[in-house]
Amino acid sequence: MNEDIKQAALKTHLKLRGKIAISNKGDLSDHDNLKLYYTPGVGAVSSYVAEHPDEVHLYTWTNNSLAVVSDGSAVLGLGNLGPLGALPVMEGKAMLFKHFAGIDAVPIVLDVHSADEIVAAVKAIAPSFGAINLEDIAAPICFEVEDRLKADLPIPVMHDDQHGTAVVVLAGLINAAKVVNKNLTDMKIVIVGAGAAGVAIARLLYKYAQPTIIAVDSRGVIEPSRTDLNDEKIRLLEFSSNLKPGSLMDVIIGADVFIGVSKPGTLTSDMIKTMAQDPIVFALSNPVPEIMPDVAKLSGVAVMATGRSDFPNQVNNALAFPGIFRGALDNRVKTITDEHKIKAATVIASFVQSPTPDRIIPSIFDEGLTAQVAAVIV
Amino acid sequence: MNEDIKQAALKTHLKLRGKIAISNKGDLSDHDNLKLYYTPGVGAVSSYVAEHPDEVHLYTWTNNSLAVVSDGSAVLGLGNLGPLGALPVMEGKAMLFKHFAGIDAVPIVLDVHSADEIVAAVKAIAPSFGAINLEDIAAPICFEVEDRLKADLPIPVMHDDQHGTAVVVLAGLINAAKVVNKNLTDMKIVIVGAGAAGVAIARLLYKYAQPTIIAVDSRGVIEPSRTDLNDEKIRLLEFSSNLKPGSLMDVIIGADVFIGVSKPGTLTSDMIKTMAQDPIVFALSNPVPEIMPDVAKLSGVAVMATGRSDFPNQVNNALAFPGIFRGALDNRVKTITDEHKIKAATVIASFVQSPTPDRIIPSIFDEGLTAQVAAVIV
Repeated sequence: MNEDIKQAALKTHLKLRGKIAISNKGDLSDHDNLKLYYTPGVGAVSSYVAEHPDEVHLYTWTNNSLAVVSDGSAVLGLGNLGPLGALPVMEGKAMLFKHFAGIDAVPIVLDVHSADEIVAAVKAIAPSFGAINLEDIAAPICFEVEDRLKADLPIPVMHDDQHGTAVVVLAGLINAAKVVNKNLTDMKIVIVGAGAAGVAIARLLYKYAQPTIIAVDSRGVIEPSRTDLNDEKIRLLEFSSNLKPGSLMDVIIGADVFIGVSKPGTLTSDMIKTMAQDPIVFALSNPVPEIMPDVAKLSGVAVMATGRSDFPNQVNNALAFPGIFRGALDNRVKTITDEHKIKAATVIASFVQSPTPDRIIPSIFDEGLTAQVAAVIV
Repeated sequence: MNEDIKQAALKTHLKLRGKIAISNKGDLSDHDNLKLYYTPGVGAVSSYVAEHPDEVHLYTWTNNSLAVVSDGSAVLGLGNLGPLGALPVMEGKAMLFKHFAGIDAVPIVLDVHSADEIVAAVKAIAPSFGAINLEDIAAPICFEVEDRLKADLPIPVMHDDQHGTAVVVLAGLINAAKVVNKNLTDMKIVIVGAGAAGVAIARLLYKYAQPTIIAVDSRGVIEPSRTDLNDEKIRLLEFSSNLKPGSLMDVIIGADVFIGVSKPGTLTSDMIKTMAQDPIVFALSNPVPEIMPDVAKLSGVAVMATGRSDFPNQVNNALAFPGIFRGALDNRVKTITDEHKIKAATVIASFVQSPTPDRIIPSIFDEGLTAQVAAVIV
């Protein structure tokens, strides 16, 4: 990030002193209203809701509210900044929810970090909200936290770093495949980085088209002879046969797609030259991608995406999460499934009518995107 | 509560579908703003806050936000309605915070009910907020929860059912004493109901003027020979000497003040006739007081207060809590002390320049009240 943006961001935040606020939906300036919104009238509403818990969304803001929950253990690409360090990002996420989907999102940063404690805290506060957006929780704890909360809570729960990213990657890849005139099912895809996003991307791509997927982490190819794999990484072994020990340099040979959710410099020009014809590169490390777009283009990349807004084809979660949660709240969906995510990706892809190398992913400012994504979350 | 208000409250809530919303303090409609409020710019803010945790309030909404936390175990006078039943009240409380003090209050209802679990949940989410308003948590758990959170958290914590009520009762009693021309220190005060509010009222009145205070619960006078007293009730024994077993009927004889935080019908005309000259009655059971004001007046009561807005002298927490939390947030007060509460009560009392039997307590709509209370919380 350049120094200008850093200073401008600090200055803007210092001026605003908080990016969101609470507003009242009714006027309290006379006693008559006060008696309905608060005591004594509200007592009748509380008694009614206690007796009819399934109708709580009709009488409270839970039909339109969610918590953006983080323990600050993996804030953006910055690592473990703790709950206070996470708060500016979660307030920003709340702004995005309001702006793009009209959702009332409350930033909740947690001062606990084990899976048990995070699950306990979120379950404790869950009746306050209509949904839970988990955010910036480090792998592998994020997998257990999400699985347990999805199983235990009666409201939708989604870890956006996993699934928001996976949805937009799938959308981009659907269109990239059209550009290079290949079939996703026949592709060999190498994913570098097996954290929250990498695992979710692999699983969603496989669910959608069963391509060959080879995952690589900091120790090399994820393959059956390794003894250091967690449960999530073991599940990635299903997506390819004949996996052998090796490095990215070994498995990138002949690959149709490189997807990086790792760190700058991971992919080199020489590696790209060993890929199959018309290589597709999603270099999603942020703010500095695994390889810069201009270098990639010179090395023969056919379609390139990054996480940045200043290059074409930005893989931006904001294409997915506002619509997914809008739909889940409006349609009273209790579990966001893989089928929902695939439908969302298909809708997002369809917003680009004629994909080209420089336009496989729509803009977050495209009119109607959130509403159309929401419409398929049923 | 009459049926008209019940129906009107239900209808109003059904129409609003939530009484509060989140609003954005900045405009996201172009990419340049998005880069400052969210990635990549926000990364610089998160890194800065993580390194300078004492400045989090300068960069996030914690300078103006609090959580209104309840487990729903004692909702208004309605008892244990659980977290969903509590939510309409907590949303209403959030409205009051915004309307009277400009504070961004988030309703947090908890699906846990032991002191350990409530403390753990509130501590887990505490970095998200600038203060904690505990609400409608049943005694005696509320005492332990508040004490532990005050000790453990670096932000102000106040259980409003205890202290908000105590502050306004003290304010009213300061002015009632003027009306009957008595000295608070010389008074004999009988408090019926030894739950959250009763205990806090007794403690604050004693701290302020050391009157004789006799507390009565559903089993009679709280006195040293009883073996069923919890820690909080034992502490009430300090406020009177020569306490003997007995009933309200025994100890009301010669009392200057009756304060009821119990249930309708507790105080009778005959009892009032045994009180000292110019009896003062605060019948705070809501919505139906311990004795109705017209009956009390006929029995010779000199000054009467209730919890209702349709009679003179409403003991309304909204006179106290908006200013107390406004001051605590603005002045970076970490602990709300008894001295703060006494100062707040004195300010509230001073808003009635010439107390009369029908005006010992100001109106919540009196201009400048919140600001003047806030000014003494330093």
